[in-house]
Amino acid sequence: MTAETPPQQGRTAARRGRPSQPTILDVAALAGVSKSAVSKVFNNRPGISEATRVRILDAAGKLGWSPSASATALRGERTRTIGLVLGRDADLLTADPYFAELIAGMEQELGPPGYGLQLHLVGDDFVREEEVYERLARERRVDAFVLTESRIGDSRPALLRRLHVPGLLVGRPWQREHAEGLHYLHTDEDLHGITEAVEHLIGLGHRSLAYVAGPDNRVHTVLRRRAVEDTLARHGLRAHSVIPCGFGNATAAAVTERLFAPGAEPPTAVLYPNDTMALTAIATLTRLGLRVPEDVSVVGYDDLALGVWLHPRLTTVSQNVQDIGRVAALRLLAVLGEDVPDPGRPPAPHLVVRESTGPVTGPATGPVTGPATRAPGTPAQGSLRDNP
Amino acid sequence: MTAETPPQQGRTAARRGRPSQPTILDVAALAGVSKSAVSKVFNNRPGISEATRVRILDAAGKLGWSPSASATALRGERTRTIGLVLGRDADLLTADPYFAELIAGMEQELGPPGYGLQLHLVGDDFVREEEVYERLARERRVDAFVLTESRIGDSRPALLRRLHVPGLLVGRPWQREHAEGLHYLHTDEDLHGITEAVEHLIGLGHRSLAYVAGPDNRVHTVLRRRAVEDTLARHGLRAHSVIPCGFGNATAAAVTERLFAPGAEPPTAVLYPNDTMALTAIATLTRLGLRVPEDVSVVGYDDLALGVWLHPRLTTVSQNVQDIGRVAALRLLAVLGEDVPDPGRPPAPHLVVRESTGPVTGPATGPVTGPATRAPGTPAQGSLRDNP
Repeated sequence: MTAETPPQQGRTAARRGRPSQPTILDVAALAGVSKSAVSKVFNNRPGISEATRVRILDAAGKLGWSPSASATALRGERTRTIGLVLGRDADLLTADPYFAELIAGMEQELGPPGYGLQLHLVGDDFVREEEVYERLARERRVDAFVLTESRIGDSRPALLRRLHVPGLLVGRPWQREHAEGLHYLHTDEDLHGITEAVEHLIGLGHRSLAYVAGPDNRVHTVLRRRAVEDTLARHGLRAHSVIPCGFGNATAAAVTERLFAPGAEPPTAVLYPNDTMALTAIATLTRLGLRVPEDVSVVGYDDLALGVWLHPRLTTVSQNVQDIGRVAALRLLAVLGEDVPDPGRPPAPHLVVRESTGPVTGPATGPVTGPATRAPGTPAQGSLRDNP
Repeated sequence: MTAETPPQQGRTAARRGRPSQPTILDVAALAGVSKSAVSKVFNNRPGISEATRVRILDAAGKLGWSPSASATALRGERTRTIGLVLGRDADLLTADPYFAELIAGMEQELGPPGYGLQLHLVGDDFVREEEVYERLARERRVDAFVLTESRIGDSRPALLRRLHVPGLLVGRPWQREHAEGLHYLHTDEDLHGITEAVEHLIGLGHRSLAYVAGPDNRVHTVLRRRAVEDTLARHGLRAHSVIPCGFGNATAAAVTERLFAPGAEPPTAVLYPNDTMALTAIATLTRLGLRVPEDVSVVGYDDLALGVWLHPRLTTVSQNVQDIGRVAALRLLAVLGEDVPDPGRPPAPHLVVRESTGPVTGPATGPVTGPATRAPGTPAQGSLRDNP
């Protein structure tokens, strides 16, 4: 976590186009009355005509002003709204429950102090995305933003600095120096889960692991890929293949079909970048006549609700997405001056072994590939994208 | 659709605690300048000192006012935010992608004209739910609300009337007279899809159908149940069982295990109230040693993304949830005076036949039950709830 406080507001902010917060003097000026008249109305004291009372209430309403009694002072000046702008297509959002889990976790903490989440889906149009951030900041619609999916060359931290709106990134910033002023949620143990997954498969006798890597413009996919390759290297192994690709179900099916195509030397285990892709892959393997885990072991990532219910139950890296959402919300509320408990760090991702992984029992549709005896296979050369 | 226009705002509204919209005169009053000075600043005309310009911009910002050039006049006075308050637990929201689909559809239409969706999850605490509606209305955080999941005895239409905020219900109101002032999305063909599903199963030779009915306090679950029973009756059949229950995965597994418990006379086909429950049921049947569709046919509802990818591919009632979200958003934008195309009606739900239904091939674990030869079985008596 960085230690920045939210940007100061007032005259300086007004000069930059962000108006200062309304005061009781503004209400009095707008209603054409004295400050004490406003005070009387809000303290239910007598001596104000009904017409004046209505005018004062109307002015306060227009300005969004309410009496600033101690703790409510700061809150009264806020929108109590957090912005979440997702650079995702609507289709992809619904295909992967990650965001629903994250939002659900955030809502658990935002709800009680009366905060709401304002959601914008902008697809992968970065220009449109920046416009949305700018408009929400200009119109003072939100107190802060939550950012997800840290990107290589991410322009959003600089944008938020320019807009003077606090932001919290769920994940690791692309480069620390570029994330100046940005709060972020990250534990040094983030890569523990994916490392455990690779160790688990090696422990089961797998020597030929394929890694479906997700989009290569995301910081977390790049870091996880490196952790997979480093872990394999520590055991003298190389990946059967590493496949950068999009996050969709169609991609998961296509990648899986290519890995296990007739004539290919298939891996004995495949790691997918999220649970939905892993579940799609299991169904694809079933259609190809392969059994999970007897012929192929499959590992997902996220530990979403459905994985534990389907058959076989999914082995996956649990990252407690709802907990991450909860911690993110509490951190932001603290940044905004709310009196909330310190949530600590979100739990580190860890492997949950269920039924979709098992020992190598023999060749699937080809011979088991020994350690480092062959270069990464053909699939590593290609890149399937449905979400560049 | 009802034909109400949104409630008039102005003096009357101010008396009830909702301030009238700010005007250029308010900006001038607050800044202590003339109306023409405000006009000059916003039209970039000369003759205004820098100090005055800053004061005017600050006043306009505080009031949330912007110049009312023809079409933007109305918009400038709005928050351009739609409220969506979901009476669901976070867990359930993430277990069922319905809401992610609905939100994704709405965002497609809300985004371009610069609207956002403000989301609140309040669990099944109706008191807290009403408080959220009241606060959002009082603080003028939203221009309108979208309501989902029409309930028996729904209090929200009356609440919105009292709050003078327009609302659009996705679904059929509990009682038309109680929904006065509420816009709603409903086609008379809503029940076409579930009727098709029952006809499809009867056409495949099924005579013993179980209906997992969902919570019995929702209007749509009650109507669908009636449609199932009416369709069966037209063929001289009664349901093997009708099971009111919650929407969760654990419920889906438990209901399925009970229907196919040792010694029970099982149905040959089961209809579930959503896809996630149907997918969980297929996995549960697989664990029980039953094949889908050879031993049991399974039908879902919603046609969500994952159903087409898993194995077997899910037969389901498609209701194009994203389209419903799109139409709902466009209808609300029209209510709010935005110039948007008439979206027409959302497509009627219809059956999509895939791989999880097939002809009756013989007894599953017991004899096929003939038409109307037995009363609904034991499961109909109980009610499993994880989301009352």
